[in-house]
Amino acid sequence: MERLNLGLENGFTTLLKTCLDQKKTVLLVGRCKVDYVGRARSTLEYGDRIILVKEDGSIIVHRPYGYQPVNWQPPGSVFHIKKMGERYLLKAVRRKPQESLEVTFTHIYMIQGFSLKDEGKFSLHVTELEMKEALTLKPDLLEPGFKVLRPEKPVPPGFVDLYGLDKEGRRVVVELKRNAADRPAILQLYKYIESLGGRGAVRGVVAAPCLAKGAQRLMEQMGLEFKRVDPKECAKVLSSTDWRTRSLSEYMGERTV
Amino acid sequence: MERLNLGLENGFTTLLKTCLDQKKTVLLVGRCKVDYVGRARSTLEYGDRIILVKEDGSIIVHRPYGYQPVNWQPPGSVFHIKKMGERYLLKAVRRKPQESLEVTFTHIYMIQGFSLKDEGKFSLHVTELEMKEALTLKPDLLEPGFKVLRPEKPVPPGFVDLYGLDKEGRRVVVELKRNAADRPAILQLYKYIESLGGRGAVRGVVAAPCLAKGAQRLMEQMGLEFKRVDPKECAKVLSSTDWRTRSLSEYMGERTV
Repeated sequence: MERLNLGLENGFTTLLKTCLDQKKTVLLVGRCKVDYVGRARSTLEYGDRIILVKEDGSIIVHRPYGYQPVNWQPPGSVFHIKKMGERYLLKAVRRKPQESLEVTFTHIYMIQGFSLKDEGKFSLHVTELEMKEALTLKPDLLEPGFKVLRPEKPVPPGFVDLYGLDKEGRRVVVELKRNAADRPAILQLYKYIESLGGRGAVRGVVAAPCLAKGAQRLMEQMGLEFKRVDPKECAKVLSSTDWRTRSLSEYMGERTV
Repeated sequence: MERLNLGLENGFTTLLKTCLDQKKTVLLVGRCKVDYVGRARSTLEYGDRIILVKEDGSIIVHRPYGYQPVNWQPPGSVFHIKKMGERYLLKAVRRKPQESLEVTFTHIYMIQGFSLKDEGKFSLHVTELEMKEALTLKPDLLEPGFKVLRPEKPVPPGFVDLYGLDKEGRRVVVELKRNAADRPAILQLYKYIESLGGRGAVRGVVAAPCLAKGAQRLMEQMGLEFKRVDPKECAKVLSSTDWRTRSLSEYMGERTV
């Protein structure tokens, strides 16, 4: 990358200030170091990076590799720009928690501001099969300590959606619903529980985003339990829109220190 | 934003292909929709977005607000570019898991490729006090089901670092060390345990990244336990480099769907 060191005394700071004052989304590419101070501290030595400053006051710093930013601060950051000798400082300060991100540039390769309009709706879709997969990958979505022994266990009246153990080691049979759990789902689960020795021997859990009208009472009569499982949360476990599940293993193994 | 619809038949596709062939990091700003298909599915309607395509084959799609991307795919994606009538399709395909991200542009406001060099080391720093704060925020870092009752409980021989209950309801006293837990730390913890009724009444846990030489044996003799707690993991709970903790609540409440 050819390094275009800005010779202008105030060119960069003026341009950046104007963009931020006009609530533009700013894209910056440059050689910089990044210092974060908040409830912990981090330092990132000099390198070429991409910086996004959004109109809502969020800032994101990307290295040229990896899908996760190396530093960031959520909306509500207040920006300060300063020329310090041959360097440019962009400081993002936030309260609650008190934290600040300092990006010190030695070179600016690009700076551009955009007024972007984005009202597009985002939708995540998931089927019952995908919910099952999500719960198998991340059983804590059902309840802490839950372990899946078998997805789809055959029992005389049909197929159990999820069969596992709770944290106390009790057997659990789960009936999954994409929409409101209704009477047929509850009666179905009850049949499974009966075929496995009744509710003294095994816990019966209906997992769904909500209960249909009248279902609560029926469940209580039958000694079954309801656990709220959000299909959207399941979709996020499975989809590329979820940073959490992947980041757990991938980010910890990243080449950072 | 003035919309510069590219009139060139192959201008955009050629430029983008060249950048990707040369393993450049590409910044794109344009009006687009995004369709993800993998183990779940998501759709994002048309809007103005910023797209980063990195040299390692990762792709990240940002809306003009929020600190999290709306879509992304990790390194290793293979890109396909196609002109479809008046629209431009950028498709990122990945195996294991099989997934694809399709970005369909109606307008391109900017496209620029960069060869970026970034060897800068990233370091996270954390003190014992910050480790305590991280464990209070996220007690599962110690062990699943752990609950903090009091950080810094005073006992006759001094101050206990963390005092809580385990998932079975037993009392737990935790001695925290930033570095290898050594004999003095273990003897200190033993004094606390004695002052609280001895090890029958309360669990004694040394939480540290590792044990100093000879410490393991001493701990066993004293009936104390060691739990590995990574300061880096603590720093991530506290710092803006961690997507996980914040995303849990913030992302779920986002205006999506």
